[in-house]
Formats: sequence, structure tokens, C-alpha cells
Amino acid sequence: MSHSSHRYDEADRAAIYRVIRERRDVRSFVRSPIEPETLGRILESAHAAPSVGLSQPWRFLRITDPHMRVAIHALVQQERARTADALGERRDEFLRLKVEGILDCAELLVGALVDGGANEIFGRRTLPDMDFASVACAIENLWLAARAEGLGLGWVSMFEPRALATLLRFPPNARPIAVLCLGHVQAFDPAPRLALERWRQPRPLTDMLYENRWPEVAE
Amino acid sequence: MSHSSHRYDEADRAAIYRVIRERRDVRSFVRSPIEPETLGRILESAHAAPSVGLSQPWRFLRITDPHMRVAIHALVQQERARTADALGERRDEFLRLKVEGILDCAELLVGALVDGGANEIFGRRTLPDMDFASVACAIENLWLAARAEGLGLGWVSMFEPRALATLLRFPPNARPIAVLCLGHVQAFDPAPRLALERWRQPRPLTDMLYENRWPEVAE
Repeated sequence: MSHSSHRYDEADRAAIYRVIRERRDVRSFVRSPIEPETLGRILESAHAAPSVGLSQPWRFLRITDPHMRVAIHALVQQERARTADALGERRDEFLRLKVEGILDCAELLVGALVDGGANEIFGRRTLPDMDFASVACAIENLWLAARAEGLGLGWVSMFEPRALATLLRFPPNARPIAVLCLGHVQAFDPAPRLALERWRQPRPLTDMLYENRWPEVAE
Repeated sequence: MSHSSHRYDEADRAAIYRVIRERRDVRSFVRSPIEPETLGRILESAHAAPSVGLSQPWRFLRITDPHMRVAIHALVQQERARTADALGERRDEFLRLKVEGILDCAELLVGALVDGGANEIFGRRTLPDMDFASVACAIENLWLAARAEGLGLGWVSMFEPRALATLLRFPPNARPIAVLCLGHVQAFDPAPRLALERWRQPRPLTDMLYENRWPEVAE
């Protein structure tokens, strides 16, 4: 078989490029439930991610207890205030941004990283945080599958991890790295929210591409 | 507009789930070039990834100098030997695995993380390694786009990052996190290579899913 035969047909490639292009970090949701089968497909997509040494270091907590949801929201509000203070002159501008949709999203998930410890040397001896990369890849898969299902996802990283770990009774070798808001949306933004809100303008790919070595004149 | 209208049609969803399922961490390549337009689409897919605070902390170095490719290969071989020694009783089993395809892949890329420093507080005040997660999401996008184009990708993380940074003349605020082998392949494996080689068996999603809090009886 010719190796070029591994290429997907044009319609399939177009669908894949479309979802990569149309994925958004979503902060505003409309309240209607997600079918269990849909949620299952999305979680299976996360679980199909690559992982260093096949370690599968991700765990996902589905938050179904409304009191727990409120407690997580409160933790994020605390960190939002601390981030605002740390931002100094952009404090007020930051506080006008909507940074999470924890109380409105259909499903609230917490993404966690389990440290396999000294047993997990494969691909990690010199880069121990490769396990974190594996969980991030899983969340990106989850994000793309959600978009294909017409669902928005927001990765909220504004929380004190030890406080959230205590709330969710994590063991010492695990830490929460993502509060994931998943749900139906009114509309998907045409560009990243932080660009539309003029918080920051994205840079083009050409700024990120070098050849053979780091250029002498770069940031 | 009903929010359910954001769902992609069945054929598009099937294509997206297919690429997520069929993506593999590839170590064996056949030597034939990649068209520049194809490489461009794959890199644009990486660049469409989410990033914390819209920081876009990824950089990609395309290695076109054959001497540089050989030097990178040598660094990975050094770390492969060190990993083997660290693995102890599984040393010989590990050394039988093919862990990289640096000399055979059509395109060799190095993925890098730029630390934005104290300016990058948004979403990172308590989780500073969120920038690493952003680069991992970019690489997962790249991986999926490559698979759709019929190309294999291998993320090699066996290298001493300071040695590679020196070789590629990185500035102090950047570090290499991925040696990416991209190229045509004879075949895509039906399952992860490490499972097929009986290095490790993957666990099912149900082992990774909890509700509301960490279970008392878990790893």
C-alpha cells in the first residue's frame, strides 16, 4: 500500500481543520443538559490522548453535587481577586472580563494529574513535567470533541491548587490542573475572547517559526 | 438560532472522532518529503491552539541542517542510554524498543516553550506551568492535523534540555520540550506501540473517572 493512502479524504480533512480553527475557550453558557452518550464520547476522546510512556496520568472528576460546584466557584472567585490585584494597572480592565462560567455550564469537570513517581522514568527522566503535557493533550482532545458536538469548553486555571485538592480530597500524589466548564452556548465567538475584548492581540505563526537555531534578534 | 445548531453534521463528527482515535506516537518513518503547503497547514493547526491568557508561548524550530539533525540524534541517544540505566531490571527490554525516528523522518521540528515571566499572570498566578500546557495543546493539534494528512508524528522527550538549548542557541527564557519527528509512514499501528510491544497495557477510561471527590480506595 502506498504511504500516501493514509491521507484522509478532502471532506474529512476539512472537518478536522474546521474544528481546530473553530475551537474556542468559552466562558458563557446556556443551561441545558448534555446527553450522557455525548459526554461519554467527549471523555473517551480525552482518554485517547497520547501519554508519556503510556502512563495515562489524567483523572477527571465529574462534579454533580451542586454544593461542590458552589464551593469550586468560590475558590475561583478568590483567585480572580488575587490575580486582579497582582495585575496592577490592568486590574479594572481584568475585572470586566468574564473569566469562568462555573455556575452556568451544563457539566463541571475537574482535570487532575497523578504523579506516577519514580516508576515513571520513560520519557521523563530529564523532563519530569511531561506527565503534565499528557493531561494537556487529553484536555485538547476533549475540547475538540466538545466543539464538534456543538458544546463550548472553558479551561479555568484560576484557583489555588492546594485548596482545590483539599476540597476534592485529593491524595498527595495528585493535583488539580483544570476546572473545565462544558456546556451549550448561545454562539461561538469568531476569534479568541481575549482578542475580541482587546485584552491582547494574537501574533501570527510566522513570529513563532525559526530555522535550525534561535534567531539572534528575537524576544 | 437554537444552540443545538452548533453541532457538526454526522460525517464531520465521525472524521473528528476518527482522527482522535487513529492518532499514534510514531517512531518509524519512510523517507519521502512533505509538501510545503501540507507542512504549513499542520503548523497553522498547532498555532490555532488555546493558550493561557492568549500568550501563545510556543515556538517551533524547523531543523533543515543535516548536521544539526545528527547532533540532535546524538543527544537523544545519550539520554536513551541514561534512561536505560535508570530503568534497572527493564533495561534490556527498554533497549529493544524503537524510541525515535530522528534520522528517518521527513521533517524534524523542535518544540519550545518561552517563559513570558512576571508579565504572564493571567491564569498562571497559582499554576505557572500553564504555559507548558498551552504548548502541549499546540502539539496535540499538530499531531491530529498530521494524522489527517496521512503523516506520522513522534514526540520524543528523551534529551537533556539544557544541552539541546545550548545546541540550538536558546535564550535563557526558553527551553526545548519536544523533538518532533514528522513524516510518511509504512503503516499506522492499530494500538499504541508500547501496548503492542507489551511494555505496558493501557487502562480503561472508567479507571480515570471519579464523581465529586477522589475515591477513598484509589491508587
